Parts: sequence; C-alpha cells; structure tokens
Amino acid sequence: MNIQRYAENPLITPSDVKPHREDFEVIEAFNAGIATYKGEVLMLLRVAERPISEDPNIVKAPVYNPETNELDLIKIRKNDDRYDFSDPRVIRNKTKSGDFEYLTSLSYIRIARSNDGHHFTVDDEPFIYPSNIQEIFGIEDPRVTQIGDTYYIYFSVVSPVGIGESMVSTTDFVTMKHHGMIFGPDNKDVLIFPEKINGKYYALHRPTMKSVGDPNIWIAESDNLLYWGNHKHLLGLREGLWDSGRIGGGAVPFKTDKGWLELYHGATLDHRYCMGAVLLDLNDPSKVIARSNKPVMEPEASYEKNGFFGDVVFSCGAINEGDIVKMYYGVADTSMACAELSLKEILDSLDYI
Amino acid sequence: MNIQRYAENPLITPSDVKPHREDFEVIEAFNAGIATYKGEVLMLLRVAERPISEDPNIVKAPVYNPETNELDLIKIRKNDDRYDFSDPRVIRNKTKSGDFEYLTSLSYIRIARSNDGHHFTVDDEPFIYPSNIQEIFGIEDPRVTQIGDTYYIYFSVVSPVGIGESMVSTTDFVTMKHHGMIFGPDNKDVLIFPEKINGKYYALHRPTMKSVGDPNIWIAESDNLLYWGNHKHLLGLREGLWDSGRIGGGAVPFKTDKGWLELYHGATLDHRYCMGAVLLDLNDPSKVIARSNKPVMEPEASYEKNGFFGDVVFSCGAINEGDIVKMYYGVADTSMACAELSLKEILDSLDYI
Repeated sequence: MNIQRYAENPLITPSDVKPHREDFEVIEAFNAGIATYKGEVLMLLRVAERPISEDPNIVKAPVYNPETNELDLIKIRKNDDRYDFSDPRVIRNKTKSGDFEYLTSLSYIRIARSNDGHHFTVDDEPFIYPSNIQEIFGIEDPRVTQIGDTYYIYFSVVSPVGIGESMVSTTDFVTMKHHGMIFGPDNKDVLIFPEKINGKYYALHRPTMKSVGDPNIWIAESDNLLYWGNHKHLLGLREGLWDSGRIGGGAVPFKTDKGWLELYHGATLDHRYCMGAVLLDLNDPSKVIARSNKPVMEPEASYEKNGFFGDVVFSCGAINEGDIVKMYYGVADTSMACAELSLKEILDSLDYI
Repeated sequence: MNIQRYAENPLITPSDVKPHREDFEVIEAFNAGIATYKGEVLMLLRVAERPISEDPNIVKAPVYNPETNELDLIKIRKNDDRYDFSDPRVIRNKTKSGDFEYLTSLSYIRIARSNDGHHFTVDDEPFIYPSNIQEIFGIEDPRVTQIGDTYYIYFSVVSPVGIGESMVSTTDFVTMKHHGMIFGPDNKDVLIFPEKINGKYYALHRPTMKSVGDPNIWIAESDNLLYWGNHKHLLGLREGLWDSGRIGGGAVPFKTDKGWLELYHGATLDHRYCMGAVLLDLNDPSKVIARSNKPVMEPEASYEKNGFFGDVVFSCGAINEGDIVKMYYGVADTSMACAELSLKEILDSLDYI
C-alpha cells in the first residue's frame, strides 16, 4: 500500500488552537469530521481543553453546568486514595464500576478551514459546545454526512448517565439545528451513509456491551435520520489480527463500483489503533463483501506514535476524488494529519469473503 | 397499600407447561406479557426449558441454530476450571469479560388463555420461538401493547453478540409479522405507550452501560414504532431505597387522570426485586411527576420468596379497570401470579416531585 502522508503533517496541533478560556489549555485537536463547503475543506476538530492547574497535587475536572451555562471545575487531590489517575484522559473512582467518574478535559467541536486541504486556519470560537445535560462531560469525535445542501454532524455526547450519539444539522456552518440523541447509550462511532439505499437511510454504530458481546460494528436503518431501528450485527473482532480488541466506524462510507467502502478503526487489546477497510454491498449494506486482513494504515510516523495517547491513527472523515482517497485522521489523540491512498490499492488489498 | 393476591396464586407454574421436546424440562413459566383478546386474558408466558442432564457432572447449554432450525446442545463438564456455575441461570467463562458465555436454559414465548383472569390453560405449542441469529440464546420478558386491532409484542433477544429488544405484531395471536430489533444492544425492558402523544409514539427502555452510567430507565420517541430516537434519561437509581441497584420498565404504561402510570421494577444490589410506580406527564412523558419512595409490592408470599431465583416480583403487564389494577407478575423467576391493587391507593402512595 502506497501511503502519501502530507509533508505538512501534522496539519493541526493543539498549539494552533487558541483556548476558549484564558485559564484553560488546549491539549488535543484531533479526530475531526470532514466536510467540503463552498470550495473549502472543513475540519470539524474535536478540541479538548483542560483547566490549567497551579497546584501539581490537584487535578481539576471540567464539567459543563446546563443551568448556569458555565463550566464547573471539580478539584480532586492526587493523594485521594479513592481515585485512580493512571489513565491521563480520565479520573476513575475505584469504589465504583464503570470506566471513569470524571474526564480530565472537556471536548467540543471547532472548525478549521482550508483552500488546499493542506493548510488550515482554525476559527477563533467553538462551533458546537456542550449545551445540555447529556453533554456535561463534553462532545467527541464528530462525523459529517452531506445530503443535498444539509450537513448532518453527529458526535458522542458524554455525561454521568451514559455515552450516546447526538446530531445537529447545518447548511452554513454558522447556525445549526439540534436533533437530540439519535443513538442511545452505550454507543459511539456512528456513521450515516450519504444517500438512501432502496428507500432507507443506513448508519453504522458501535454499541459497547456490559452483559454479553464485544465492541463490534452494527448497522441500523431509518427513514428520517432521527429515528433508527432494524439493528443488525455487522462486523466482529478477529483474534490475532489488528482489529482484535475493539472496532468502530471511521470515515463516512463512500460509494465505489464494488460497494460501499468504509474506512474503520480497529485496536488491539493494548490500544494500538490502526485503520482498515470493509466493503459493503451497494444495495444492502448489511452484507459484508470484503475486509482488510491487514490494516490499510498503521501508526508509523513519529506524530502517530507519540502524543497524549500514542500509537493511534483514527479517521473520522475522508474525501474521495477518482482513485485518490484523502484520509484525514487524528494522530496519537493529539493532532490532525492527512494521507492520500489509492482507492484501487485499498480495494485490491481486501480479503474477499 | 391493600394488595389482594389471587387465591389461585401461583396461577401458572412450570409443571403446568408441557416441554416442547421430550428431552427437555420446563423450569420457568414467568414474566408474562398481558393482553386482552376476544374477551379472554392472554398471558404471553416466558417459558424457559433446559435439556435434561443424565450425567450430574455435565451441564448442557441449549443454543438455537438458525441454519438447521434446531437446538444445539453444548456440553460442559462441571469440573472444567474455566467455567463458573455459581449462578444457576448462566455459565460464565472466567477467562472472558461479560456476564455469561452460555445460558443454562432457552426461553421462548407461549400463550396461556383465561376467561376469568384467574384460571389459565396453556397452549400446547410455543407461540414465538427463536428464529434468527439474534435469538440463539432465547427470547425473554415479553410485553404487549395494543394499538387499534394490532398487538405489538416485544421482548429481549439474547445472543453472543448482545442483548437487544425485538418486536413482532399480530392481530390474531396465531400469525405474526417480524419487525427486527427495535432497540440495539445492550438494552431490555422496553415498554411502548399505547397511543401517540402529541403526534409521537413513546417508549421506555433500559440500556445497560459499560463505559459510564447505571442501569436506568430512558425514554425515546418514534413515528412508526420501528425506528426510535430522541433518547433521554428518565429515571435513576436511588441509594438506600428499594430501587438502588437496578431499575427497568415493568407493565405497559396506562393513562390515568393524573398522568401515565408506569409500574416498574427495582432491585437492590443483592437482587431483591420489588414493584413500584412512576407517574409521567400526560402530554410529555419525559417529565416525571411522582414516584414510589416505598415499593408498591414486595416479595412476601412464599411463591415470591422461594423458587429458581427467589425474592422477585416482576410485572410485565397489568389490566386497569376503573379503580382496579390487576397486576400480573412473575414470581421468583419461576411462576406467574396476579394481585389486585387500588389505582387511587397507588397514586396516593407516590411521592410528588
């Protein structure tokens, strides 16, 4: 596989983003949804900011307060035995179940704009910021599906009651309409197909199970993009391969002669995130035609291997022009990068079932 | 609270149900959805059958095979150290995450019919039996919502990829139409309201979270009963009370002058299941008006305290006639019972918020 990483990589780093508050610092600008709008490439960056801590013995957790429309800062002493700080992204309460009690940063969505797809300018202000009780720990990993003149932007919303997927729509990337939570918890990595297929909209989603079942990719259908049903299991983990620990949809699926191509992420149990591909039937995307036995892209460049959470390539959007696939992707949970791949090479690399 | 338990309780026990195969035994006939049809009360029983084991050192797990349309019997030796048999309902694999690897019985739905609501006759054959890959470990805890002449029957479907909620509809309790999985995993305890409210259908559901969040009751909306969205958190756990460990919808909600009344189940962390009530706004059921601080019904009768899994009362359906609420309920994960309560007394017992 020929992978043409952009010479300008990383295209956006946290230092390119001005914090939205003076007492905060931007620690991540990554996992951007991608749109083309009025001749520009837009990155809908997931920006993560954290409160600057003057006291190294105290960790501050930012929590959006929907009543005041401000952030509350929860302060926790690092020597408090109830808490576990070993994962820099979260604060775990050892006395409770679940993956975390607080996040150490608050994520929201900010736009970066480019004429050439290589050089981006970041907006001064947030675009989508937490605004309700479902988003008090932040909004993460947006994807953008364009249908006609409308851009549907959907993202994980995180709060103490669960992680689900909410959606807004816009026609101008200035104003937006909120559509609420379209996939209930525990769910993330939703990807909406860009057109109806045999009269139905389709979406991939990634439920996280407690009772039984692995973090796999499922598919659902809809007739209005807001309400979803007919859920079916689509793609599982594969022991011993690059996607043995966890998988989820990546870039918005796009149409090829051979089927719908979905660039998805897979991780091993030790959290090495790669990108691979799955080809779905053009007329029935619940049918898998082919899949990557080897990743399409692995973390190899230094900016992919090192960062806030290293060894991660994680795409939320790509642009397909003829044989060229411009895959934008988050690196090391820190920055944004892009690489060009050949569509034919991706399709040829798949293992046909 | 006056609770008039029927003198005939338990109304149905496992011994009233003929196994559907000679080499199987019925161990549970419980958690029935309730419908009234042509002057009869129908219990849609959850019947659990298990393979009779000739060898006490071997546990057999029944698994529906959608390719052969038969049951496969997985045999596991009790001295196999990888497995944990301490919960009689499941076989856990200690080397894997999740609550179980196999179930020790297979559940399906069978109808019991009555002219008087007290004396029931069980059909000779199953009504809804596993029929697809999402149901290979069985189907559980049906509820029935009547809208016009159509009865919507929905139930948990269990398979190695997850537990979700699927639906069929019928107008005659003989033929049925399958509508697929309406709530994706990890989810159960769905309850569909019996009419549109301000132009939308509503349902309660109970996602089970791994990442963050407790097993709480959520509410969603739909315009066709098949596709669901606008998910909102409705009701949480309450430390120190009867519903501190786990809650989920119970009987199909019914309309009262004061609001929609939902009889829901709550359990403590040590698995004592009681029934309580929550009152929801007539025009917007995502608004909670009142809730039981004390249970409406606790396991007290011997058939409620003792059985396959004791100390459980668990209703999946009730019939409201004037001031009388006939609450049918599963007891001790074994049998079915019924009790009559006063609607006024239930409403008066609630703690208004």
